[in-house]
Amino acid sequence: MSDIEQLKQQVEAQGSVVRDLKAAKADKAQVDEQVALLQALKKKLHIANGGDADESKKKGGSGKSLILKEPKGTKDYSPKEMAVRTEIFSTIVSVFEKHGAVTIDTPVFELKEILVGKYGEDSKLIYDLKDQGGEECSLRYDLTVPFARYVAQKSISNIKRYHLAKVYRRDQPAITKGRMREFYQCDYDIAGIYDAMIPDVECVRVAVDVLRRLDVGGFVVKVNHRKILDAIFEVSGVPQEKVRAISSAVDKLDKAPWTEVRREMTQEKGLEEAVADRIGQYVQISGPGEEVLAKLRALPELMASAKAQEGIKDMGLFFRYAAIYGILDYVSFDMSLARGLDYYTGIIYEAVLVEENVRLPTAPESSAKKGKGDAVDESQIRVGSIAAGGRYDELVGMFSSVMHAKGKKTDVPCVGISFGVERIFSIVKSRRSEAEIKANRTQVYVISLGDTLTDSLLEDRMRIAAELWDAGIAAEFAYKVKPRPQAQYDACDSAIIPWAVIIGKDEIGQGTVKIKNMAQKVEEEKGGVTVPRTNMIAELKQRLQMN
Amino acid sequence: MSDIEQLKQQVEAQGSVVRDLKAAKADKAQVDEQVALLQALKKKLHIANGGDADESKKKGGSGKSLILKEPKGTKDYSPKEMAVRTEIFSTIVSVFEKHGAVTIDTPVFELKEILVGKYGEDSKLIYDLKDQGGEECSLRYDLTVPFARYVAQKSISNIKRYHLAKVYRRDQPAITKGRMREFYQCDYDIAGIYDAMIPDVECVRVAVDVLRRLDVGGFVVKVNHRKILDAIFEVSGVPQEKVRAISSAVDKLDKAPWTEVRREMTQEKGLEEAVADRIGQYVQISGPGEEVLAKLRALPELMASAKAQEGIKDMGLFFRYAAIYGILDYVSFDMSLARGLDYYTGIIYEAVLVEENVRLPTAPESSAKKGKGDAVDESQIRVGSIAAGGRYDELVGMFSSVMHAKGKKTDVPCVGISFGVERIFSIVKSRRSEAEIKANRTQVYVISLGDTLTDSLLEDRMRIAAELWDAGIAAEFAYKVKPRPQAQYDACDSAIIPWAVIIGKDEIGQGTVKIKNMAQKVEEEKGGVTVPRTNMIAELKQRLQMN
Repeated sequence: MSDIEQLKQQVEAQGSVVRDLKAAKADKAQVDEQVALLQALKKKLHIANGGDADESKKKGGSGKSLILKEPKGTKDYSPKEMAVRTEIFSTIVSVFEKHGAVTIDTPVFELKEILVGKYGEDSKLIYDLKDQGGEECSLRYDLTVPFARYVAQKSISNIKRYHLAKVYRRDQPAITKGRMREFYQCDYDIAGIYDAMIPDVECVRVAVDVLRRLDVGGFVVKVNHRKILDAIFEVSGVPQEKVRAISSAVDKLDKAPWTEVRREMTQEKGLEEAVADRIGQYVQISGPGEEVLAKLRALPELMASAKAQEGIKDMGLFFRYAAIYGILDYVSFDMSLARGLDYYTGIIYEAVLVEENVRLPTAPESSAKKGKGDAVDESQIRVGSIAAGGRYDELVGMFSSVMHAKGKKTDVPCVGISFGVERIFSIVKSRRSEAEIKANRTQVYVISLGDTLTDSLLEDRMRIAAELWDAGIAAEFAYKVKPRPQAQYDACDSAIIPWAVIIGKDEIGQGTVKIKNMAQKVEEEKGGVTVPRTNMIAELKQRLQMN
Repeated sequence: MSDIEQLKQQVEAQGSVVRDLKAAKADKAQVDEQVALLQALKKKLHIANGGDADESKKKGGSGKSLILKEPKGTKDYSPKEMAVRTEIFSTIVSVFEKHGAVTIDTPVFELKEILVGKYGEDSKLIYDLKDQGGEECSLRYDLTVPFARYVAQKSISNIKRYHLAKVYRRDQPAITKGRMREFYQCDYDIAGIYDAMIPDVECVRVAVDVLRRLDVGGFVVKVNHRKILDAIFEVSGVPQEKVRAISSAVDKLDKAPWTEVRREMTQEKGLEEAVADRIGQYVQISGPGEEVLAKLRALPELMASAKAQEGIKDMGLFFRYAAIYGILDYVSFDMSLARGLDYYTGIIYEAVLVEENVRLPTAPESSAKKGKGDAVDESQIRVGSIAAGGRYDELVGMFSSVMHAKGKKTDVPCVGISFGVERIFSIVKSRRSEAEIKANRTQVYVISLGDTLTDSLLEDRMRIAAELWDAGIAAEFAYKVKPRPQAQYDACDSAIIPWAVIIGKDEIGQGTVKIKNMAQKVEEEKGGVTVPRTNMIAELKQRLQMN
């Protein structure tokens, strides 16, 4: 019975949350979500009181409690949004394929045990499937762990693969920042035993190429090396058990000033002040590659570490190759870049938008109206990191060791880059006007004019459409027996269909059709051109520049 | 404590299942699955005995119980499989877009209540997400219900959309038959208030066009109409409460003879023999449209039903339009087609492969060796239905009625077609030789020859690759400082890369490169052609037929 009392209290508390939100005129999605929670609680209470759990089922799912929405943190993509997304994906894939990558696909869920122990503290964000009998499964959290599982399971010794797919994280969504619970990752990884830094620099070149082609604006790729970071912590005197915590504090330096990070290290994480200051001297070093390399080589206490030497040797090669690949201008060697994930073992990198670019473009009129001079719009969207990755040499080995008897493991070193497309999507979409985006690929609309009351010409439109389809031309027409002329012209306009084939009684009688450019871009054909019906396909193909 | 005893018994029973399977040399996937179940039971027992549930976690997921595999009923796609799948998808999308469709995307999971009550008995196959706080969600079961939810939620009055995405069903997998728990559907649907049968016939034309282009072999599209079926059951005297059960019995007529279906109706489902015989007279009618229409129109007791008249009027228009669209040869009017799903309200259709085609092609040698005359290979793969759909006029209304206050609902009539690509994939893949499938798009491989011990030319290869990439040419090279010549040629061969740019000391000295066609298809250039380095890009573009 105390269960019921507890539920009653929860219902009351949630009820007041909803009332408050409604009073505060909170946005609809937020209210709906809290209402859904309230209704779920009420239902539980109803059942606890002996009510029927299956009531909504009996009503065929049309019970009043049903709210029509996407699950929290997920979203539908409209046709125009899909047109933008498809364009972004096709740019990304074209660069991946230019670099010789093949693609694979893995299931959207993995055996739960595959994901366990790979994401540190973030493991709590993993979505599990309900136990309905059989194996325990979880939705994939990224594409890297499934890739490593694939390579180990299939005993692959080398592969260069890309994978564009959705991943799932039970995070607090921030849709305006492009942080979702269901989102796409676009990954490019090179697995295999190769010579130092050759695949690594190619991943960064791929990142630069993709971001330039997507035209996201100014960006910089920060690079660092896990071994140098480890050496810094070592020579600064960070106790081994605090390395992870201190590393995650360092990673905040892109958002917070050093004084704040230092406070976190010393006060929250109990690091000695002198140790923090030594770290501070190192991690504030950043700049062009050769400059930073020279600075590091001039630090005898750091160079005494074998780890630092290995890392610096790698980075020396990296910047040499980066010069050959023409990407030096985009790269900054930044000792404060640490990256959260556990599995990195070598170079790490992260592409970030430069300051001028991290807000959405404001429409010129509205900023003019504001008349506040150079005041920055507070609603600006910070997108920050848009691609990231690094070298992870031991992840495949973790899997292969469990596959073979006696723990024999086969290491397959890997390096990769992952693009956060939701963020890129926000930027690219904000640059386009909705009205200008053509979501379909229709080339021709078949229109019938004339006395629609006595003769609809429906079957003539069907016959022409079939002929166009047979010729590989994308065509539509009104699905009405007697469509109004204006409705047909409007359909053309709203779908941005460039050409029309127009028929009326006269054309049918004379065995002709009228071809008209709806965008009226062809000056000499403004009123349309009448051509023999038998030439229709050839005339259209010529105008559509089809072979 | 009886829990523990029960678990012990389960562990023992499962242990003998595993032993039996191993003794019977069952296939590995089957054994692995049962072993996984055994280990899960052992773990439960261990925990029930006071053991630590998190042991595997502490070991970083590398506990011995981890089996490296895809979850049951799902599969990884290799690069060559992906090349085939991408080709199939692109064919399907090109036809959908030729017919003016736009695409949308919806989340992979929906609020559980959205799916409830839509799939009849099959609802038990829905995958639920674990309750980790927040909303109750389930993986989508098809793309039709999410589409109807989308249309209702966004108050869309008309849309022609396609959607290629994975759906999830906790069915007993039969991988050889192409039945999976995670599989792709490719859907094309037309929503909106239009005149009779115009969108309907276009869906069937789309099906015919796609299947012809995919070259799956002979197929036929069976069509029928829900209203005619309803009328048949009515005039035959089927009691209202038995209509569904009898309808699903009728649907088995493609796999079982009438005598068997009749037995099911009368003995299992308690239908009067006379009623079954009356049904039998109707549902065995099939053939070309006009022929069947004439037969039906000549049945006065059927024509007395208003429902039958409506259905027959629809089908009359359908066959008239189908003639205009040139698809009559592919269509059969089959009174035994019933389709399982609850939501169909008008025309229904299903594309099936014709008999000669429902087995995989057998290699000529092996059938010659068998020498058993015309004996059919028992391992043949029956794929049966490869596309299906129909009209569902009330699904959107079911959703819109719950969205608006006072149950005001807006019906948006829909008709659509869904392709079962896993089955199509099995057929297309079986026709290809693995070795011939090129999974990458690499056009040029950069090779260095000569004295690899003193000079690797690595940086020259990098410089050339960068130049190729800048020119939009897909290029690769060996990620080694000193690659062996043969290893580089082998890489070209195995990846089916058509062109090589070859450099050695001489070429570097003379400022030239050698361009070689690796497929040796250009007779006059068999040994390769030496060109000035400055002309490399132009020479390659010409050979690659790039503008």
